[in-house]
Amino acid sequence: MKKWEENVRRVVPYTPGEQPNVPGMIKLNTNENPYPPAPGVLQALAEMDAERFRLYPDPASSVLVEALADYYHRPKEQFFVGVGSDDVLAMAFQTFFNSKKPILFPDITYSFYPVWADLFGIPYEQPALDEAFQVVREDYQRENGGIVFPNPNAPTGLYMEPAGVEEILCRNPDVVVIVDEAYVDFAGPSAMELIDRYENLLVVQTFSKSRSMAGMRIGFAVGNPVLIQYLNDVKYSFNSYTMSQAALELGAACVRDGAYFQETQKKIIAARERTKEKLLELGFSFPDSRANFIFARHESCSASEMFEALKKQNIYVRHFDAPRIRDYLRITIGTDEQMDILIGFLREYLKR
Amino acid sequence: MKKWEENVRRVVPYTPGEQPNVPGMIKLNTNENPYPPAPGVLQALAEMDAERFRLYPDPASSVLVEALADYYHRPKEQFFVGVGSDDVLAMAFQTFFNSKKPILFPDITYSFYPVWADLFGIPYEQPALDEAFQVVREDYQRENGGIVFPNPNAPTGLYMEPAGVEEILCRNPDVVVIVDEAYVDFAGPSAMELIDRYENLLVVQTFSKSRSMAGMRIGFAVGNPVLIQYLNDVKYSFNSYTMSQAALELGAACVRDGAYFQETQKKIIAARERTKEKLLELGFSFPDSRANFIFARHESCSASEMFEALKKQNIYVRHFDAPRIRDYLRITIGTDEQMDILIGFLREYLKR
Repeated sequence: MKKWEENVRRVVPYTPGEQPNVPGMIKLNTNENPYPPAPGVLQALAEMDAERFRLYPDPASSVLVEALADYYHRPKEQFFVGVGSDDVLAMAFQTFFNSKKPILFPDITYSFYPVWADLFGIPYEQPALDEAFQVVREDYQRENGGIVFPNPNAPTGLYMEPAGVEEILCRNPDVVVIVDEAYVDFAGPSAMELIDRYENLLVVQTFSKSRSMAGMRIGFAVGNPVLIQYLNDVKYSFNSYTMSQAALELGAACVRDGAYFQETQKKIIAARERTKEKLLELGFSFPDSRANFIFARHESCSASEMFEALKKQNIYVRHFDAPRIRDYLRITIGTDEQMDILIGFLREYLKR
Repeated sequence: MKKWEENVRRVVPYTPGEQPNVPGMIKLNTNENPYPPAPGVLQALAEMDAERFRLYPDPASSVLVEALADYYHRPKEQFFVGVGSDDVLAMAFQTFFNSKKPILFPDITYSFYPVWADLFGIPYEQPALDEAFQVVREDYQRENGGIVFPNPNAPTGLYMEPAGVEEILCRNPDVVVIVDEAYVDFAGPSAMELIDRYENLLVVQTFSKSRSMAGMRIGFAVGNPVLIQYLNDVKYSFNSYTMSQAALELGAACVRDGAYFQETQKKIIAARERTKEKLLELGFSFPDSRANFIFARHESCSASEMFEALKKQNIYVRHFDAPRIRDYLRITIGTDEQMDILIGFLREYLKR
């Protein structure tokens, strides 16, 4: 090792999730939306003024913040936008989790929470989900420096009704509680409705799943204006220009095209419920997902074997080789046709 | 203050640079390029496949990395891309500056260096530029944990030839040296030519100035593949998807349209030299800028008064109310016509 290498930050080697690009493949591995972005996005792209790119974008991201405020009928001071919900969540960890007490999040959850906690030197504890992968709400009554959990949870897909979220909030008035709602549009009411009563609640959502815009990197947070101001203070203090002009304009167009959003939401939910029935018939079991994926295990066939067999057919799903969940496959909900091909293959495969 | 606010990260309140949007204004305050992006960018935008936005972008940013590698005739393993050079620089600070010894950068320089150092808990010292605003190279021979400086420097515009950069490199083989070349395309040879001999050199550039793409947020680093791998390891460890599909495609198109880039570069340099002559005639003095701005003071008129008078005419320049430089205005080089209007106004104004 060279002398200059001694001061290099050492990180756990990490390979980003497989993003195969095989002609004709069925990509059910990263919870993307099978439908293209809204027609409004295509129109905004066609009308985009490329000459404007020579200028810095608006650091306040006003066009996108205002579109979100209009859509959710809330004041714009309640919104913060970032480069995907990963950027928003990391910024929120950095802004709100500065206690010496550990923050809390489930043992089975989004894999980046412990990464950001380590990055910012935040102590954490991970209360175990119960045997049915449900959050044990009592575990979130101990002393802590903050709470974060996805709802629906990933990769289980289980959704907690607002009453459950509120119970956690009631018990934790002295810390910031972040509800990561990447998949909530496929589930039920957002905890957003609670922010007017719980000023310590931050709700985070993304354009990558229900809004078909993973490629544009857009996420947002909703909370009371004091929380949002703290986030903006931290953001402005070290990088004023993170959102590109294209992301701001296309994101705003996406939000304004609400009808398409609701229509594709419904199609994916219908495909999910239909897929659940078929999987049950084939001997799979799974938590009752309310997300755009199903986290399923088979009564007799190993997940890693099925994963490889599917891959050979150009059908990509996700397998986590981790404690408690290595028997499961996480299958993204695609189009009806894609799900038919998946089920058709599994039916034959399991007959062997 | 509420109890939950006790754990909030406190930052120095900061207002992002003024981004006025007044019809007919002459915007010479943030060193943007007065010319639109290359025709190749407009064409790539017209041909962009919006349906692709439903998928996550390529985490390796290959299309952009390969375009840069082709343009600079270097292996693609020598390139790293990020969301503007601010993102690339912050990532480089975090990756390479983990010594207990202070990093070094000039007292008058890019304002975000101390911000990132504070953010990541990096100790630093700021050797003073000499009276003529030149870097005193001997000051960079003391023990340190790393070195970073812009070349040309901001906001002075002064450029150090590669031989000067090499002298600093020779004396500092045991730390990473970052040369921030945001403005180098308006100046002279890049230090990029030194990376094959100095494996501890990281050169950072941006698309925001010479490439007319401030609105798309694209920056990049060039260094030996070991350095670049370290950067990618840190990036992948906490956020795999920062570059949007649109930024990757438009950035690649921008790089491929090299002819336009060189043409606008020349026009801006010619306008800068012409403006220098006019400013001298009007009683201004300035370091001999090699950037797309001039950092000028007037022999008798105060900078803050001129700043306000220009603003009333819808001409926006930059004034830093900071030690050693509060007598100066930083004037971005615009089109010939814009510079004529600026000079015309100043001529009348200074006659009062």
